[in-house]
Amino acid sequence: MSIDVTDISTVWEQLAWERGGKIVYIVIDGVGGIPDAEHHGTELQVAQTPNLDQMAQQSSCGLLEIVGPGITPGSGPGHLALFGYDPLRYNVGRGILSALGIEFDLQPGDVAARVNFATLDDQGRVSDRRAGRIDTELNQKLCDKINQKVHLDFPGEYFFKTVSQHRAVFVLRGTELGGQLADTDPQSTGMAPHPVKSLDQASQATAELVDVFAQQVNQVLADEKPANTILMRGFDQYQPFASLQERFKLSGVCIADYPMYRGVSRLVGMKVLPRPGGMKPRFQALVDCYGDDYDFYFLHVKHSDSLGEDEDFSGKVAVLEAVDQLMPLVTALQPDVLVVTADHSTPAVLGKHSWHPVPVMIQAKTVRVDSVSTFDEYACGSGSLGLRPGVQLIGLALAHAQRLKKFGA
Amino acid sequence: MSIDVTDISTVWEQLAWERGGKIVYIVIDGVGGIPDAEHHGTELQVAQTPNLDQMAQQSSCGLLEIVGPGITPGSGPGHLALFGYDPLRYNVGRGILSALGIEFDLQPGDVAARVNFATLDDQGRVSDRRAGRIDTELNQKLCDKINQKVHLDFPGEYFFKTVSQHRAVFVLRGTELGGQLADTDPQSTGMAPHPVKSLDQASQATAELVDVFAQQVNQVLADEKPANTILMRGFDQYQPFASLQERFKLSGVCIADYPMYRGVSRLVGMKVLPRPGGMKPRFQALVDCYGDDYDFYFLHVKHSDSLGEDEDFSGKVAVLEAVDQLMPLVTALQPDVLVVTADHSTPAVLGKHSWHPVPVMIQAKTVRVDSVSTFDEYACGSGSLGLRPGVQLIGLALAHAQRLKKFGA
Repeated sequence: MSIDVTDISTVWEQLAWERGGKIVYIVIDGVGGIPDAEHHGTELQVAQTPNLDQMAQQSSCGLLEIVGPGITPGSGPGHLALFGYDPLRYNVGRGILSALGIEFDLQPGDVAARVNFATLDDQGRVSDRRAGRIDTELNQKLCDKINQKVHLDFPGEYFFKTVSQHRAVFVLRGTELGGQLADTDPQSTGMAPHPVKSLDQASQATAELVDVFAQQVNQVLADEKPANTILMRGFDQYQPFASLQERFKLSGVCIADYPMYRGVSRLVGMKVLPRPGGMKPRFQALVDCYGDDYDFYFLHVKHSDSLGEDEDFSGKVAVLEAVDQLMPLVTALQPDVLVVTADHSTPAVLGKHSWHPVPVMIQAKTVRVDSVSTFDEYACGSGSLGLRPGVQLIGLALAHAQRLKKFGA
Repeated sequence: MSIDVTDISTVWEQLAWERGGKIVYIVIDGVGGIPDAEHHGTELQVAQTPNLDQMAQQSSCGLLEIVGPGITPGSGPGHLALFGYDPLRYNVGRGILSALGIEFDLQPGDVAARVNFATLDDQGRVSDRRAGRIDTELNQKLCDKINQKVHLDFPGEYFFKTVSQHRAVFVLRGTELGGQLADTDPQSTGMAPHPVKSLDQASQATAELVDVFAQQVNQVLADEKPANTILMRGFDQYQPFASLQERFKLSGVCIADYPMYRGVSRLVGMKVLPRPGGMKPRFQALVDCYGDDYDFYFLHVKHSDSLGEDEDFSGKVAVLEAVDQLMPLVTALQPDVLVVTADHSTPAVLGKHSWHPVPVMIQAKTVRVDSVSTFDEYACGSGSLGLRPGVQLIGLALAHAQRLKKFGA
């Protein structure tokens, strides 16, 4: 490892040592918003969050532009940025994250894709990209059927695994595979699925194999309703990233219920705790595991994002208020560094992820506490951290945990 | 095209799609100032601009450092930055911009230089770099004379074209040309013109050719008064840039009267409307062309810069007030994204371009409206956009126009 002057995280790699304090990240997914005309404020401004506000009064606050100006982060890139992995450099397909997210024992060289069970009409066009969100039980039955009946003749093996509802994962393991394949998911209804297509020479044989697989699956599912086909996207070949331990000497632990976030945590080498199964259990799991085993604790709150995507302003407000009520469990641990932020904004007004900067606060003995008195997108804009790229957060957290040596003599 | 992790604009290239809203840029050339001791404020602060101020109250505001800290942008680099072309990477000689600006049909490989008619004294020293700003009619006569009498013996052809007043353009077309030539313009009086000199091996033959040209021109002009020589600068070889359409899927249109701005617009593939001939006609031309043909509208205001260069504080104030009066024509169009900014500062106190950041405001349904209530250099400094590099502007505009896909899953 050496310093890349265009990537500041490589400098932290050089300076990190094993000593220092503990860092806790509370990531409230999609927390950033824009004002709602009806409520005259963002979700965070409208929510009653006395604990978060009090924390802001004891923190250094700011805004993070997670990937870059104008760029709307997906959940994977959003979290990678928070963990110090510049998403422009650490690119990973959704297939990899999905496979890691279900604890699949992915091996280097495996090629993975995220799969949707879907419905084709009698013209061969996609009529429902999610097959009416079939339940997980039916999903499992269809996966079993595929695993029994589909045979690929190649020096290797395939795996086809349930995730939940309409979601599944497809993995190829073998020699001479390539991961540069285009999505077959057309991303809208009324169109036929895209043919399987390789995007480079090295992936051509793999594309032919995947095509055979897709055709066999279509035969196997032909009489099923409503899930009579599969759509694949996010193909990628797994090459593990250097871990948080290798890069920043951090022993990390992930407390999350949703596969995606568990997957990205495994990707950077965190220990992933068993699914707590709910928000309060997640906070309790953090309390329970807090101690000598880990230096870095990542707790993920999902529903602020889901309700933002559902354009449910009040629902998102309620989630933020619920998080607020649980915050005393975290502050009681008195972590050396406590960070509250998000992986991206999901304004309920837009109903989708957005590029707007997210608020962040860092509580630590060593911060310059600023005059920000409430935790929201506007107040944090005048905080002492300023407006920064998301990838810078881990460097500040490491520094306040006194986990970085001096640079130069 | 692939991502260059050190150039965020390459990420927008990957994410841009054909859909989304319309973007209008109102570029008030040189709008930034520094306070005048007599007026106790900048030109923008002193000007009565109720419409711009009201827009600021409905916008997200900030400051742009157009090229970089301490760097005073020329007009070409200043505009390239606003259009998302990092001027440090997209370097273009003034000769190219001048040729494009007069609608000259420049071909890839052509070498162009900006020319001044000038006056030499009897010692061979430059006594007036602009030959007393001769009128365009005389300029045209001298160009005709040069075109008739100067013959270059090489496998190609040359073009010598009037721009206006003392300004002209020289273009060489042929094989094996090189564009790395030093200026012959010494940039001050009392000195002899610099000899023609190549700056690299590949331009050596071209330098010899240009030297022959310059000598013949001196013979042809020997008896002319006051324009008895030419000074050349900004040599460059034309290699077209990827267009706004190719890079960001934007169909752009330029509404400007001055050749330089028309040239830089052509360089990035915008349609350039016929010269409107005045400020109000320019605003009216914007109104008239607004519709389905274009996604990106660039309207240029020139005199704020010229009067700044003339150290005419009150004159610049008057231009800003005139622009303000025309702004309702633009807001009435209700563009999805409306941006008001500048390509650089031209403080009347200094009488020239400067490095000071310029104010910017972005009006769109999706912006976080901040508490900035007047459009000036100080108020915008506390806006929610913060202080940013100029090249970031187009990314934010594309995002607010919802013209960028999500990054990663």
